[in-house]
Amino acid sequence: MATLLHIDSSLWPESASASRSVTAAFRKAWEDQHPEGTVIYRDLAVDPVPHLDAHTVSADFTAPADRTPEQASAVAARLELIEELETADVVLIGAPMYNFTIPSTLKAWIDHVILAGRTAMVAESPIKDTPVYIVASRGGSYAPGTPREGFEYVQNYLEATLVEMLGVEVDFIVPELTMAHSNPAMAELIPLAEASKAKAHEDAQSKGKTAALKAA
Amino acid sequence: MATLLHIDSSLWPESASASRSVTAAFRKAWEDQHPEGTVIYRDLAVDPVPHLDAHTVSADFTAPADRTPEQASAVAARLELIEELETADVVLIGAPMYNFTIPSTLKAWIDHVILAGRTAMVAESPIKDTPVYIVASRGGSYAPGTPREGFEYVQNYLEATLVEMLGVEVDFIVPELTMAHSNPAMAELIPLAEASKAKAHEDAQSKGKTAALKAA
Repeated sequence: MATLLHIDSSLWPESASASRSVTAAFRKAWEDQHPEGTVIYRDLAVDPVPHLDAHTVSADFTAPADRTPEQASAVAARLELIEELETADVVLIGAPMYNFTIPSTLKAWIDHVILAGRTAMVAESPIKDTPVYIVASRGGSYAPGTPREGFEYVQNYLEATLVEMLGVEVDFIVPELTMAHSNPAMAELIPLAEASKAKAHEDAQSKGKTAALKAA
Repeated sequence: MATLLHIDSSLWPESASASRSVTAAFRKAWEDQHPEGTVIYRDLAVDPVPHLDAHTVSADFTAPADRTPEQASAVAARLELIEELETADVVLIGAPMYNFTIPSTLKAWIDHVILAGRTAMVAESPIKDTPVYIVASRGGSYAPGTPREGFEYVQNYLEATLVEMLGVEVDFIVPELTMAHSNPAMAELIPLAEASKAKAHEDAQSKGKTAALKAA
Protein backbone atom coordinates (compact mmCIF):
# COMPACT_ATOMS: atom_id res chain seq x y z
CA MET A 1 0.00 0.00 0.00
CA ALA A 2 1.39 3.40 -1.02
CA THR A 3 1.90 5.54 2.06
CA LEU A 4 2.70 9.24 2.33
CA LEU A 5 3.82 10.73 5.64
CA HIS A 6 2.79 14.40 5.56
CA ILE A 7 4.09 16.71 8.26
CA ASP A 8 3.24 20.38 8.65
CA SER A 9 4.88 22.70 11.15
CA SER A 10 3.79 26.21 10.24
CA LEU A 11 2.18 27.96 13.19
CA TRP A 12 -0.40 29.45 10.80
CA PRO A 13 -3.46 27.68 9.42
CA GLU A 14 -3.44 26.84 5.71
CA SER A 15 -5.20 30.08 4.71
CA ALA A 16 -2.21 32.09 6.00
CA SER A 17 0.66 29.63 5.51
CA ALA A 18 2.93 29.47 2.49
CA SER A 19 4.31 26.06 3.42
CA ARG A 20 0.91 24.48 4.13
CA SER A 21 -0.57 25.54 0.80
CA VAL A 22 2.41 23.99 -1.03
CA THR A 23 2.43 20.75 0.98
CA ALA A 24 -1.32 20.52 0.27
CA ALA A 25 -0.62 20.81 -3.48
CA PHE A 26 2.05 18.09 -3.28
CA ARG A 27 -0.25 15.85 -1.29
CA LYS A 28 -3.11 16.33 -3.76
CA ALA A 29 -0.82 15.39 -6.67
CA TRP A 30 0.27 12.29 -4.76
CA GLU A 31 -3.31 11.35 -3.86
CA ASP A 32 -4.42 11.76 -7.49
CA GLN A 33 -2.05 8.90 -8.36
CA HIS A 34 -2.94 6.85 -5.28
CA PRO A 35 -6.64 7.34 -4.58
CA GLU A 36 -6.50 4.22 -2.42
CA GLY A 37 -3.24 5.21 -0.75
CA THR A 38 -2.71 6.04 2.90
CA VAL A 39 -1.74 9.49 4.10
CA ILE A 40 -0.40 9.72 7.65
CA TYR A 41 -0.77 13.33 8.71
CA ARG A 42 1.04 15.08 11.56
CA ASP A 43 0.22 18.70 12.26
CA LEU A 44 3.00 19.65 14.65
CA ALA A 45 1.51 23.10 15.34
CA VAL A 46 -1.89 21.72 16.35
CA ASP A 47 -0.59 18.56 18.06
CA PRO A 48 3.06 19.09 18.97
CA VAL A 49 5.10 16.08 19.97
CA PRO A 50 6.89 16.47 23.33
CA HIS A 51 10.45 17.72 23.54
CA LEU A 52 12.92 14.86 23.79
CA ASP A 53 13.44 14.32 27.51
CA ALA A 54 15.46 12.27 29.98
CA HIS A 55 12.77 9.58 30.33
CA THR A 56 12.88 8.94 26.60
CA VAL A 57 16.65 8.87 26.20
CA SER A 58 17.39 6.95 29.39
CA ALA A 59 14.91 4.27 28.29
CA ASP A 60 17.36 3.37 25.50
CA PHE A 61 19.77 2.21 28.16
CA THR A 62 17.18 0.33 30.19
CA ALA A 63 15.84 -3.14 29.42
CA PRO A 64 12.12 -2.98 28.55
CA ALA A 65 11.15 -4.97 31.66
CA ASP A 66 13.04 -2.54 33.90
CA ARG A 67 11.57 0.68 32.50
CA THR A 68 9.55 3.03 34.69
CA PRO A 69 6.00 3.84 33.55
CA GLU A 70 7.28 7.25 32.35
CA GLN A 71 10.01 5.58 30.31
CA ALA A 72 7.62 3.01 28.83
CA SER A 73 5.14 5.68 27.85
CA ALA A 74 7.84 7.91 26.35
CA VAL A 75 9.25 5.02 24.32
CA ALA A 76 5.80 4.09 23.01
CA ALA A 77 5.19 7.65 21.84
CA ARG A 78 8.60 7.80 20.19
CA LEU A 79 8.15 4.47 18.43
CA GLU A 80 4.82 5.61 17.04
CA LEU A 81 6.60 8.48 15.28
CA ILE A 82 9.38 6.20 14.07
CA GLU A 83 6.95 3.60 12.74
CA GLU A 84 5.13 6.29 10.78
CA LEU A 85 8.44 7.23 9.18
CA GLU A 86 9.39 3.61 8.49
CA THR A 87 5.99 2.85 6.97
CA ALA A 88 6.05 5.75 4.52
CA ASP A 89 7.38 5.36 0.98
CA VAL A 90 7.39 9.13 0.62
CA VAL A 91 7.80 11.83 3.28
CA LEU A 92 6.62 15.42 2.87
CA ILE A 93 7.63 18.07 5.41
CA GLY A 94 6.53 21.68 5.66
CA ALA A 95 9.49 23.53 7.16
CA PRO A 96 8.97 27.28 7.34
CA MET A 97 11.93 29.38 8.44
CA TYR A 98 11.56 31.00 11.87
CA ASN A 99 14.54 33.04 12.98
CA PHE A 100 16.73 31.49 10.27
CA THR A 101 16.02 27.84 11.09
CA ILE A 102 13.23 25.32 11.54
CA PRO A 103 10.35 25.68 14.03
CA SER A 104 10.91 24.23 17.49
CA THR A 105 8.02 21.83 16.83
CA LEU A 106 9.85 20.29 13.88
CA LYS A 107 13.11 20.01 15.85
CA ALA A 108 11.23 18.09 18.55
CA TRP A 109 9.96 15.62 15.89
CA ILE A 110 13.48 15.22 14.44
CA ASP A 111 14.93 14.51 17.89
CA HIS A 112 12.41 11.68 18.29
CA VAL A 113 12.77 9.99 14.91
CA ILE A 114 16.57 9.95 14.88
CA LEU A 115 17.25 6.95 17.11
CA ALA A 116 20.65 5.29 17.08
CA GLY A 117 20.40 1.58 16.37
CA ARG A 118 16.96 1.90 14.83
CA THR A 119 16.80 4.67 12.23
CA ALA A 120 20.35 6.04 12.56
CA MET A 121 23.83 4.52 12.80
CA VAL A 122 22.52 1.14 11.70
CA ALA A 123 23.74 -1.09 8.87
CA GLU A 124 20.35 -1.78 7.29
CA SER A 125 18.00 1.11 7.90
CA PRO A 126 14.41 0.60 6.78
CA ILE A 127 14.23 4.22 5.70
CA LYS A 128 17.48 4.40 3.73
CA ASP A 129 16.86 6.13 0.39
CA THR A 130 13.28 7.10 1.30
CA PRO A 131 12.52 10.28 -0.65
CA VAL A 132 11.88 13.25 1.65
CA TYR A 133 10.40 16.37 0.07
CA ILE A 134 10.73 19.53 2.12
CA VAL A 135 8.77 22.71 1.53
CA ALA A 136 11.20 25.28 2.92
CA SER A 137 9.22 28.52 2.82
CA ARG A 138 10.78 31.75 4.03
CA GLY A 139 9.83 35.41 4.34
CA GLY A 140 12.89 36.71 2.49
CA SER A 141 15.43 35.24 0.09
CA TYR A 142 18.45 33.31 1.28
CA ALA A 143 19.49 32.11 -2.13
CA PRO A 144 23.20 31.99 -3.10
CA GLY A 145 24.38 35.50 -3.94
CA THR A 146 21.81 37.30 -1.80
CA PRO A 147 22.87 39.33 1.26
CA ARG A 148 21.17 36.79 3.55
CA GLU A 149 22.89 33.74 2.06
CA GLY A 150 24.85 33.14 5.27
CA PHE A 151 21.70 32.99 7.40
CA GLU A 152 20.15 29.91 5.77
CA TYR A 153 19.88 27.24 8.48
CA VAL A 154 16.86 25.35 7.17
CA GLN A 155 18.00 23.66 3.96
CA ASN A 156 21.62 23.42 5.08
CA TYR A 157 20.64 21.95 8.42
CA LEU A 158 17.97 19.54 7.23
CA GLU A 159 20.05 18.23 4.33
CA ALA A 160 23.08 17.64 6.54
CA THR A 161 21.13 16.00 9.32
CA LEU A 162 18.52 13.92 7.53
CA VAL A 163 20.93 12.58 4.91
CA GLU A 164 23.73 11.88 7.41
CA MET A 165 21.61 10.46 10.21
CA LEU A 166 18.75 8.74 8.40
CA GLY A 167 20.24 8.04 4.96
CA VAL A 168 17.17 9.44 3.21
CA GLU A 169 17.14 11.40 -0.06
CA VAL A 170 16.19 15.03 0.39
CA ASP A 171 14.62 17.36 -2.19
CA PHE A 172 13.52 20.94 -1.55
CA ILE A 173 10.74 23.19 -2.78
CA VAL A 174 11.50 26.77 -1.71
CA PRO A 175 8.74 29.41 -1.76
CA GLU A 176 10.63 32.56 -0.85
CA LEU A 177 9.92 36.26 -0.18
CA THR A 178 6.60 35.25 1.36
CA MET A 179 6.53 38.40 3.48
CA ALA A 180 6.62 40.68 0.43
CA HIS A 181 2.86 41.23 0.60
CA SER A 182 2.77 42.16 4.28
CA ASN A 183 6.05 44.08 4.65
CA PRO A 184 5.88 47.51 2.97
CA ALA A 185 9.68 47.59 2.69
CA MET A 186 9.45 44.54 0.42
CA ALA A 187 6.71 45.90 -1.87
CA GLU A 188 8.93 45.96 -4.94
CA LEU A 189 9.66 42.27 -4.45
CA ILE A 190 6.01 41.27 -4.86
CA PRO A 191 6.45 40.15 -8.50
CA LEU A 192 9.38 37.92 -7.49
CA ALA A 193 7.36 36.56 -4.57
CA GLU A 194 4.48 35.76 -6.90
CA ALA A 195 6.82 34.00 -9.31
CA SER A 196 8.36 32.00 -6.48
CA LYS A 197 4.93 30.99 -5.22
CA ALA A 198 3.80 29.90 -8.69
CA LYS A 199 6.98 27.88 -9.19
CA ALA A 200 6.62 26.24 -5.77
CA HIS A 201 3.08 25.13 -6.61
CA GLU A 202 4.21 23.81 -10.01
CA ASP A 203 7.09 21.98 -8.35
CA ALA A 204 4.76 20.54 -5.72
CA GLN A 205 2.42 19.20 -8.38
CA SER A 206 5.14 17.67 -10.52
CA LYS A 207 7.20 16.31 -7.64
CA GLY A 208 4.11 14.94 -5.91
CA LYS A 209 3.22 13.05 -9.07
CA THR A 210 6.78 11.88 -9.68
CA ALA A 211 7.12 10.68 -6.08
CA ALA A 212 3.84 8.80 -6.35
CA LEU A 213 4.82 7.04 -9.58
CA LYS A 214 8.35 6.22 -8.39
CA ALA A 215 7.18 4.56 -5.21
CA ALA A 216 4.25 2.75 -6.86
CA MET B 1 21.57 45.59 40.70
CA ALA B 2 23.75 43.09 38.85
CA THR B 3 21.55 40.52 37.13
CA LEU B 4 22.49 37.27 35.44
CA LEU B 5 19.98 35.43 33.25
CA HIS B 6 20.95 31.75 33.39
CA ILE B 7 19.29 29.34 30.97
CA ASP B 8 19.84 25.59 30.82
CA SER B 9 18.42 23.33 28.14
CA SER B 10 20.11 19.96 28.57
CA LEU B 11 17.56 17.20 28.98
CA TRP B 12 19.81 15.63 31.63
CA PRO B 13 20.08 16.71 35.27
CA GLU B 14 23.35 18.35 36.33
CA SER B 15 24.92 15.07 37.47
CA ALA B 16 24.78 13.76 33.89
CA SER B 17 25.01 16.97 31.88
CA ALA B 18 28.21 18.49 30.50
CA SER B 19 26.58 21.83 29.75
CA ARG B 20 24.88 22.16 33.16
CA SER B 21 28.08 21.55 35.10
CA VAL B 22 29.85 24.25 33.09
CA THR B 23 27.03 26.80 33.35
CA ALA B 24 27.01 26.10 37.11
CA ALA B 25 30.74 26.91 37.28
CA PHE B 26 30.22 30.16 35.35
CA ARG B 27 27.32 31.11 37.56
CA LYS B 28 29.30 30.42 40.72
CA ALA B 29 32.16 32.63 39.51
CA TRP B 30 29.66 35.39 38.75
CA GLU B 31 27.92 35.01 42.11
CA ASP B 32 31.27 35.16 43.92
CA GLN B 33 31.66 38.69 42.56
CA HIS B 34 28.02 39.62 43.15
CA PRO B 35 26.89 37.94 46.35
CA GLU B 36 23.95 40.37 46.44
CA GLY B 37 23.22 40.03 42.74
CA THR B 38 20.12 38.56 41.15
CA VAL B 39 20.14 35.35 39.14
CA ILE B 40 17.09 34.69 36.98
CA TYR B 41 17.07 30.98 36.23
CA ARG B 42 15.19 29.22 33.44
CA ASP B 43 15.44 25.46 33.20
CA LEU B 44 13.92 24.81 29.78
CA ALA B 45 14.02 21.03 30.23
CA VAL B 46 12.10 21.09 33.50
CA ASP B 47 9.79 23.99 32.60
CA PRO B 48 9.71 24.34 28.83
CA VAL B 49 8.24 27.50 27.36
CA PRO B 50 5.50 26.86 24.79
CA HIS B 51 6.25 26.68 21.09
CA LEU B 52 5.62 29.99 19.35
CA ASP B 53 2.04 29.79 18.10
CA ALA B 54 -0.54 31.69 16.08
CA HIS B 55 -2.09 33.33 19.15
CA THR B 56 1.25 34.83 20.09
CA VAL B 57 2.24 36.07 16.66
CA SER B 58 -1.19 37.33 15.63
CA ALA B 59 -1.33 39.37 18.85
CA ASP B 60 1.45 41.55 17.43
CA PHE B 61 -0.98 42.71 14.78
CA THR B 62 -3.88 43.24 17.17
CA ALA B 63 -4.39 46.27 19.42
CA PRO B 64 -4.14 45.25 23.10
CA ALA B 65 -7.81 46.09 23.73
CA ASP B 66 -8.91 43.86 20.86
CA ARG B 67 -6.91 40.77 21.84
CA THR B 68 -8.63 37.49 22.68
CA PRO B 69 -7.93 35.97 26.10
CA GLU B 70 -5.60 33.46 24.38
CA GLN B 71 -3.69 36.27 22.69
CA ALA B 72 -3.44 38.30 25.89
CA SER B 73 -2.16 35.34 27.85
CA ALA B 74 0.35 34.39 25.15
CA VAL B 75 1.67 37.96 24.98
CA ALA B 76 2.05 38.14 28.75
CA ALA B 77 4.07 34.92 28.80
CA ARG B 78 6.25 36.15 25.92
CA LEU B 79 6.86 39.53 27.55
CA GLU B 80 7.94 37.83 30.75
CA LEU B 81 10.74 36.08 28.83
CA ILE B 82 11.68 39.28 27.03
CA GLU B 83 11.77 41.31 30.24
CA GLU B 84 14.09 38.75 31.81
CA LEU B 85 16.43 39.19 28.86
CA GLU B 86 16.19 42.98 28.96
CA THR B 87 16.83 43.07 32.71
CA ALA B 88 19.99 40.97 32.57
CA ASP B 89 23.44 42.52 32.25
CA VAL B 90 24.87 39.11 31.45
CA VAL B 91 23.22 36.11 29.80
CA LEU B 92 24.43 32.53 30.18
CA ILE B 93 22.97 29.76 28.00
CA GLY B 94 23.59 26.03 28.14
CA ALA B 95 23.19 24.82 24.55
CA PRO B 96 24.04 21.13 24.14
CA MET B 97 24.10 19.79 20.60
CA TYR B 98 21.27 17.38 19.75
CA ASN B 99 21.31 16.08 16.19
CA PHE B 100 23.79 18.77 15.13
CA THR B 101 21.85 21.77 16.45
CA ILE B 102 20.22 23.21 19.57
CA PRO B 103 17.50 21.47 21.60
CA SER B 104 13.90 22.17 20.58
CA THR B 105 13.35 23.71 24.02
CA LEU B 106 16.00 26.36 23.36
CA LYS B 107 14.61 27.11 19.89
CA ALA B 108 11.21 27.72 21.45
CA TRP B 109 12.77 30.26 23.84
CA ILE B 110 14.62 31.98 20.98
CA ASP B 111 11.41 32.27 18.96
CA HIS B 112 9.80 34.09 21.88
CA VAL B 113 12.56 36.55 22.75
CA ILE B 114 13.22 37.68 19.18
CA LEU B 115 10.36 40.14 18.71
CA ALA B 116 10.51 42.68 15.89
CA GLY B 117 10.04 46.21 17.15
CA ARG B 118 11.00 45.28 20.69
CA THR B 119 14.22 43.26 20.81
CA ALA B 120 14.92 42.94 17.08
CA MET B 121 14.85 45.28 14.09
CA VAL B 122 14.69 48.30 16.37
CA ALA B 123 16.92 51.38 16.41
CA GLU B 124 17.65 51.41 20.15
CA SER B 125 17.50 47.92 21.55
CA PRO B 126 17.77 47.63 25.33
CA ILE B 127 19.82 44.47 24.91
CA LYS B 128 22.27 45.70 22.30
CA ASP B 129 25.82 44.67 23.27
CA THR B 130 24.64 42.54 26.21
CA PRO B 131 27.26 39.81 26.64
CA VAL B 132 25.84 36.34 26.01
CA TYR B 133 27.98 33.37 27.07
CA ILE B 134 27.01 30.06 25.53
CA VAL B 135 28.15 26.67 26.77
CA ALA B 136 27.98 24.66 23.57
CA SER B 137 28.69 21.11 24.69
CA ARG B 138 28.75 18.27 22.18
CA GLY B 139 29.36 14.52 22.16
CA GLY B 140 31.98 14.62 19.42
CA SER B 141 34.25 17.27 17.95
CA TYR B 142 33.07 19.66 15.25
CA ALA B 143 36.14 21.87 15.35
CA PRO B 144 37.62 23.25 12.13
CA GLY B 145 39.64 20.53 10.42
CA THR B 146 37.69 17.62 11.89
CA PRO B 147 35.57 15.34 9.69
CA ARG B 148 32.40 16.68 11.33
CA GLU B 149 33.23 20.34 10.79
CA GLY B 150 30.35 20.72 8.30
CA PHE B 151 27.77 19.48 10.78
CA GLU B 152 28.16 22.25 13.35
CA TYR B 153 24.79 24.05 13.57
CA VAL B 154 24.96 25.24 17.18
CA GLN B 155 27.70 27.88 17.27
CA ASN B 156 27.17 28.88 13.65
CA TYR B 157 23.44 29.19 14.11
CA LEU B 158 23.43 30.93 17.47
CA GLU B 159 26.11 33.42 16.52
CA ALA B 160 24.38 34.33 13.26
CA THR B 161 20.96 34.65 14.81
CA LEU B 162 21.61 36.25 18.18
CA VAL B 163 24.10 38.79 16.85
CA GLU B 164 22.02 39.67 13.77
CA MET B 165 18.62 39.73 15.44
CA LEU B 166 19.35 40.94 18.97
CA GLY B 167 22.64 42.80 18.56
CA VAL B 168 24.17 41.04 21.54
CA GLU B 169 27.80 39.96 21.90
CA VAL B 170 28.28 36.20 21.83
CA ASP B 171 31.11 34.20 23.40
CA PHE B 172 31.34 30.40 23.46
CA ILE B 173 32.68 27.78 25.84
CA VAL B 174 32.84 24.43 24.05
CA PRO B 175 33.19 21.20 26.04
CA GLU B 176 33.55 18.60 23.31
CA LEU B 177 33.87 14.81 22.97
CA THR B 178 31.55 14.45 25.97
CA MET B 179 30.48 10.99 24.80
CA ALA B 180 34.02 9.60 24.91
CA HIS B 181 33.37 7.98 28.29
CA SER B 182 30.16 6.23 27.28
CA ASN B 183 30.90 5.31 23.66
CA PRO B 184 33.45 2.46 23.42
CA ALA B 185 34.37 3.54 19.88
CA MET B 186 35.60 6.83 21.35
CA ALA B 187 37.69 5.32 24.17
CA GLU B 188 41.00 6.61 22.79
CA LEU B 189 39.56 10.14 22.83
CA ILE B 190 39.06 10.12 26.62
CA PRO B 191 42.24 12.13 27.33
CA LEU B 192 41.14 14.80 24.84
CA ALA B 193 37.66 14.81 26.36
CA GLU B 194 39.15 15.28 29.83
CA ALA B 195 41.30 18.14 28.61
CA SER B 196 38.32 19.78 26.95
CA LYS B 197 36.26 19.45 30.10
CA ALA B 198 39.02 20.94 32.25
CA LYS B 199 39.45 23.84 29.84
CA ALA B 200 35.69 24.46 29.74
CA HIS B 201 35.57 24.68 33.53
CA GLU B 202 38.58 27.02 33.60
CA ASP B 203 36.97 29.17 30.90
CA ALA B 204 33.69 29.22 32.80
CA GLN B 205 35.42 30.42 35.96
CA SER B 206 37.46 33.12 34.26
CA LYS B 207 34.69 34.31 31.95
CA GLY B 208 32.14 34.29 34.76
CA LYS B 209 34.42 36.52 36.80
CA THR B 210 35.26 38.78 33.86
CA ALA B 211 31.58 39.15 32.95
CA ALA B 212 30.74 40.02 36.55
CA LEU B 213 33.45 42.66 36.79
CA LYS B 214 32.69 44.17 33.39
CA ALA B 215 28.99 44.63 34.12
CA ALA B 216 29.53 45.86 37.67
